[in-house]
Amino acid sequence: MVEKQKDTVVGLFDSGIGGLTVMKTLMERFPQLSLVYLADTLRCPYGSRSVEAIIRYSIENLQWLIDHGAHIIVLACNTVSAVALSLLRSRFSIPIIGVIEPVVHEAVRVTKNRKIGIIGTARTINSGVYKQGICQQLPDATVVEVSSPLFVPMIEERVSPSIMKTVVHEYMRPCVEMGVDTLVLGCTHYPLLLPYLRDELPDCTIVNPSEVCSPMLDHILSEESMSAPVYEFFVSDNPDRFQQFGIDLLGWEIPVQQYYLHGTGV
Amino acid sequence: MVEKQKDTVVGLFDSGIGGLTVMKTLMERFPQLSLVYLADTLRCPYGSRSVEAIIRYSIENLQWLIDHGAHIIVLACNTVSAVALSLLRSRFSIPIIGVIEPVVHEAVRVTKNRKIGIIGTARTINSGVYKQGICQQLPDATVVEVSSPLFVPMIEERVSPSIMKTVVHEYMRPCVEMGVDTLVLGCTHYPLLLPYLRDELPDCTIVNPSEVCSPMLDHILSEESMSAPVYEFFVSDNPDRFQQFGIDLLGWEIPVQQYYLHGTGV
Repeated sequence: MVEKQKDTVVGLFDSGIGGLTVMKTLMERFPQLSLVYLADTLRCPYGSRSVEAIIRYSIENLQWLIDHGAHIIVLACNTVSAVALSLLRSRFSIPIIGVIEPVVHEAVRVTKNRKIGIIGTARTINSGVYKQGICQQLPDATVVEVSSPLFVPMIEERVSPSIMKTVVHEYMRPCVEMGVDTLVLGCTHYPLLLPYLRDELPDCTIVNPSEVCSPMLDHILSEESMSAPVYEFFVSDNPDRFQQFGIDLLGWEIPVQQYYLHGTGV
Repeated sequence: MVEKQKDTVVGLFDSGIGGLTVMKTLMERFPQLSLVYLADTLRCPYGSRSVEAIIRYSIENLQWLIDHGAHIIVLACNTVSAVALSLLRSRFSIPIIGVIEPVVHEAVRVTKNRKIGIIGTARTINSGVYKQGICQQLPDATVVEVSSPLFVPMIEERVSPSIMKTVVHEYMRPCVEMGVDTLVLGCTHYPLLLPYLRDELPDCTIVNPSEVCSPMLDHILSEESMSAPVYEFFVSDNPDRFQQFGIDLLGWEIPVQQYYLHGTGV
């Protein structure tokens, strides 16, 4: 009898809770797949950090996931995907899936009027990766880029619906005025704002990063290497708060553990 | 001839730019005093971190300031003052001034209808220090505590005036409804929102932490130990962004340097 191959483990990495939206999709699409989620909540939000800091943090966290048994990495964070993906691919030999390429591909596929809105953190928008990606494939596209740095703190801090609504309304104004027919959520936190975004742009197709990673992962995964799924969650600060988000978002009491990196200072 | 005593250096510590409001006041009130400002921008915002993380960071940063020549520390950060002041005083032998005690003293002094509003970060409000301090001195006071976690990111990210206005309006609603005659700014960032706060509460006395530290410092300082002031600014991430704030707030091109702590990971 041939010894059974060890189950494949996919490591998801985000600075906070946003990547849980990706995790949820992967749990639904690959019910046998084992997943380890790492959230660097101690150093969140990445969107406001320098490029040097983001690269350093990403290397540390990916190494931790690999040491912890991950065979494939999903960067469930647009800021890291935008700033560090190619560097991380050159540094680590295992497959690394970012959220930028599949999102760009989907936005180009679905737009009809070629007016595309992109919302993201300051760091992601300043990197220009989405606009470049879209314009390479669709040179006559009109791209409206909106840096929306309050969205992540709004979600992480669970602010009231009335504040959510007023802030979303303000940030969405340029996209509404331009008449975009496609809105790219350039951050894995943003699917948590979907009801508010749909109120502002009811006729728009929304490209959701949590939904577009699955086909890339499908290419890599082989059914043989999955049996019974194991889910683990590690955060660098505030495990209780993270657990509450997990209950809200995934619907069950996720087991959250604290991890310590050399360099995180706690 | 007696050798001249070395000039006194006061170290100011904040997680970000908020403490610059305190620095500005100290520069005006003590024009001969040398000041070193330390902003842990790499790990900002402290208001969302665990108590353990805030204590660890504060110890590291105070030690850095002392090693850098500070003789007196001003904690220009309410979150640190609320969570770590007594522990820091027991750990370090030099004078440490927090912003809580003088703010409480001033709020109790100025209120007439004994209805006092307090706005602060989630961590500061949850600590309950302001409410406890006020109610000890004024047991029949009505205290409205508002956790306003978006204010720091709003200021640090320089969001548009229209977003500032709508978010301030939402957060100030409980204070307006309660008819407070005194509003405590429980965060050194918040003086930067003064025009918006005054629009919402035009008849309210606003207790500004940047203005209440001076008397305590006055008690400690001796004129003899000051001659020509030296100003230094150190941040743990994004020095360029910090410099732009310095220009806006202090009106001159402040010389910002990056500092590296063991543990900050860059």
